[in-house]
Amino acid sequence: MTTKPKATSCADDITPFCPAYHHAVELIGGRWTGVILRALLGGANRFSDIGAAVPGLSDRLLSERLKRLEAERIVIRVVHPETPVRVEYGLTEKGRALADVVDAISAWAETWVRLDESPERRDSRR
Amino acid sequence: MTTKPKATSCADDITPFCPAYHHAVELIGGRWTGVILRALLGGANRFSDIGAAVPGLSDRLLSERLKRLEAERIVIRVVHPETPVRVEYGLTEKGRALADVVDAISAWAETWVRLDESPERRDSRR
Repeated sequence: MTTKPKATSCADDITPFCPAYHHAVELIGGRWTGVILRALLGGANRFSDIGAAVPGLSDRLLSERLKRLEAERIVIRVVHPETPVRVEYGLTEKGRALADVVDAISAWAETWVRLDESPERRDSRR
Repeated sequence: MTTKPKATSCADDITPFCPAYHHAVELIGGRWTGVILRALLGGANRFSDIGAAVPGLSDRLLSERLKRLEAERIVIRVVHPETPVRVEYGLTEKGRALADVVDAISAWAETWVRLDESPERRDSRR
């Protein structure tokens, strides 16, 4: 039997380094991912609707991000066997639970972010 | 006079695309940025303490991220004129207001993230 490191309680105590938080924050904040999640939480469920909700996002990147979110079990892709087939994207329970995170970031952004005085509108090097 | 687009209320309505939210989520979720913010919120204020709180983070990247956070007015760098000079990093009011965001992500991660079943521990391509 291998000994796994004991899980740290990441929510109760802000001090210790928390790998689950590290994973989560960079997943949610990955380029385009946060806005795709917001579009899904806002009710978009077809590929074209999600794309339309996010100006500047290419189909290729949207497809890539949705696949990543599926792999993370945040998004579920449902294929309706009609002619032509209809594909819908939805949030799993894990994905819907991100509403609190998106709300908190939206509230912070609303209060504190002024894009016209921001030093750089987009970090294109990431 | 130029006409600026009217600010959308990003917090009240989740549906419209919100550039301030887009900026915020990718800033907070930028590689290493979320964990640095968590370390600062947890009370680390010296460069070496912040570095020690984040396993795997190089001094070069820590320095780069702190500069970005300073430019965003989230972090303030204070130089105490002693011998040798003492440098401290702190959160501005804008930075301290991120506590709600970090708490929400920590709570979600605690409930939903299991790193051993995650498809990839780190997206190294970003």
